[in-house]
Amino acid sequence: MSPFRASPGLTQQWEHFDFAVGDGVATVTFTRPDKLNALTFDVYADLRDLLAELPHRGDARVLVLTGRGRGFCSGGDVEEIIGELRKMDVTQLLEFTRMTGAVVKAMRECPLPIVAGINGVAAGAGSVLALAADFRLLAASAKFAFLFTKVGLAGADMGSAYLLPRLVGLGRATELLMLGDKLDAQRAERIGLASSVVPDEELPAAVGALARRLADGPAQAYSATKVLLTRELDMDLGSAVELEAITQALLMNTEDHKEFYRAWTAGRSPQWTGR
Amino acid sequence: MSPFRASPGLTQQWEHFDFAVGDGVATVTFTRPDKLNALTFDVYADLRDLLAELPHRGDARVLVLTGRGRGFCSGGDVEEIIGELRKMDVTQLLEFTRMTGAVVKAMRECPLPIVAGINGVAAGAGSVLALAADFRLLAASAKFAFLFTKVGLAGADMGSAYLLPRLVGLGRATELLMLGDKLDAQRAERIGLASSVVPDEELPAAVGALARRLADGPAQAYSATKVLLTRELDMDLGSAVELEAITQALLMNTEDHKEFYRAWTAGRSPQWTGR
Amino acid sequence: MSPFRASPGLTQQWEHFDFAVGDGVATVTFTRPDKLNALTFDVYADLRDLLAELPHRGDARVLVLTGRGRGFCSGGDVEEIIGELRKMDVTQLLEFTRMTGAVVKAMRECPLPIVAGINGVAAGAGSVLALAADFRLLAASAKFAFLFTKVGLAGADMGSAYLLPRLVGLGRATELLMLGDKLDAQRAERIGLASSVVPDEELPAAVGALARRLADGPAQAYSATKVLLTRELDMDLGSAVELEAITQALLMNTEDHKEFYRAWTAGRSPQWTGR
Repeated sequence: MSPFRASPGLTQQWEHFDFAVGDGVATVTFTRPDKLNALTFDVYADLRDLLAELPHRGDARVLVLTGRGRGFCSGGDVEEIIGELRKMDVTQLLEFTRMTGAVVKAMRECPLPIVAGINGVAAGAGSVLALAADFRLLAASAKFAFLFTKVGLAGADMGSAYLLPRLVGLGRATELLMLGDKLDAQRAERIGLASSVVPDEELPAAVGALARRLADGPAQAYSATKVLLTRELDMDLGSAVELEAITQALLMNTEDHKEFYRAWTAGRSPQWTGR
Repeated sequence: MSPFRASPGLTQQWEHFDFAVGDGVATVTFTRPDKLNALTFDVYADLRDLLAELPHRGDARVLVLTGRGRGFCSGGDVEEIIGELRKMDVTQLLEFTRMTGAVVKAMRECPLPIVAGINGVAAGAGSVLALAADFRLLAASAKFAFLFTKVGLAGADMGSAYLLPRLVGLGRATELLMLGDKLDAQRAERIGLASSVVPDEELPAAVGALARRLADGPAQAYSATKVLLTRELDMDLGSAVELEAITQALLMNTEDHKEFYRAWTAGRSPQWTGR
Repeated sequence: MSPFRASPGLTQQWEHFDFAVGDGVATVTFTRPDKLNALTFDVYADLRDLLAELPHRGDARVLVLTGRGRGFCSGGDVEEIIGELRKMDVTQLLEFTRMTGAVVKAMRECPLPIVAGINGVAAGAGSVLALAADFRLLAASAKFAFLFTKVGLAGADMGSAYLLPRLVGLGRATELLMLGDKLDAQRAERIGLASSVVPDEELPAAVGALARRLADGPAQAYSATKVLLTRELDMDLGSAVELEAITQALLMNTEDHKEFYRAWTAGRSPQWTGR
């Protein structure tokens, strides 16, 4: 556990999704397959809180997000979320929408790389969770649907109108967010929304292999890459160059960089420790 | 008409393009087909002023921009604009270039979605008007040409050097703006500049169908999506997430969102009112 | 030479790469073919200083960057850079990383267009130099490899985490920078990283033709296009539109814009002077 955590203990049981950590790989699996893993208030809340705890645990170097059954995540449950929102006042509505945004912000600011294993439909909030990951591996039959306008809401939800144009360009993002139509895996790959597409039955192995690679590699280097990619979207050129200079000078003192040079000199592969 | 408009009446007659509104769809048609719809000072001025009035009229939920004849818009008329600019002093030149930029700014800030039906060549300022729209439907024979450097001017004109990299990436934008060469519809679609490409004779129907859909749908949801996409290009992640949280909480109180839930519960399609 | 240069003379001899200027085209050729043109401290320092001098010389309107032999540039030499860094303290490391970032910043802020003729592998710092150019013409056998994490360092180096997402989108940039795997010329073109790909033996002619076109054309127009593209990545819409209005009003007074109108009126091709 991180030395910089004091009174709060680590949560012993995450009740609203499966959570497991093994060999440096943390995995969140959505477990409402009969509802295509629709989100509830509690799933959101647990995701937000897990993302805050995860970097402090010390046992995870990468987070995998995936779904059980035919869907990845179909977004907010119509009964259990939209139905309930109908009874809320403005203060409560804003508390809810801020919570959903906080999940995306926490995913982008999480110092660990996040791999979304998109085994089926990623719709509404589910598509934004996918968007906030660093890697999106798609089963060939998976689909995206940013369907917010189809429920009468803004296509801009949980940061989607910030993130999607930065992945696929403003024109395509406008079409996808304004119309909310389905997007298949092949088009997702072509426009830069999917990192890769594999046959459905190969997805778990592909996700596992990528997670393994990220967990076994130079963790500080991966982490710094993600953190700077996130930050530099909001920085000017001069500041970004300075941030990279300072970061890289810091990383030149890591064990992993020293190990690279030792290994190279010895003509062997580096043994990364993540320090 | 908007209740928040006081002394100025609505303009009765737009003299420098065709303007019509029907069933929620406003349409601007450039009408100088013999000049491939080259722009004049008056067309620019009328576009700027129409864009300011349009959201106040209350009868339009979407704007279509298209051209009569073989061209969409060939940009500033060489005789009637470039020739006249030769006689102007710095103050007048700046007044002109600010007016042209104001048109693009008004298009991006217009709370209504804008569909460009690009029936033929979109060149120079015409290509930037297309760029400032939310959707670009292209006839298969249509072409783009950001030809500013070919007249000895900067490829950065009316916001093109801001918009184009955000649509197609910095590398492609550099090539297109610096060299000013023609770009056909197929490549435009491939790189994310065209929303879609249809056979020439099908363009009016395709534009009409998209405009119809946008006019008949949840207008506040579409409008908020556009406005936030525009604003979040200039915001950091944290601010964007907050803006979306506040906007979405507001939209959860619209009639259209309530109607979605009523319709879903009743197992019927929603009847959008745009409120 | 620029009238706005006083005491410092122009450097007579660049010792760490080939440098030549002819007919408005400046060319830097990396000349360590046996090391795939790996960079040394001195190459970095000379690049930084050349980029500062180049716009003052007055004899160059475009800069070409290319490599001798099979490689374009394989990045920092493992012996001569990484080995030496191992002996440095924090102050020296930061002085080094700031120098490398200064090269990229100088390339982006250089008012001349820069053409990278990528004749072979562009790896590590070599891939970022390519990224900072305005045009990337690739030999069909050329490859990119942002291999920083493979040496235990951040994939964010010399501004790569700022530039790459703005060229190919955040998703693809994350994959390329975090994993550091090779990217072939065909994929580079498909995702917008390569301006074009030509058969290996045709690369010198293709680079020469583009450089010739840029050197012979309206230099102020090209220069303003590049400078504004660079700046407007860091500006909001309203400021960008204003900057373009002011710039374009200025350029309307150039000889080249006047020449366009004279030539057009006379039915002949313009004779650009670059003024």
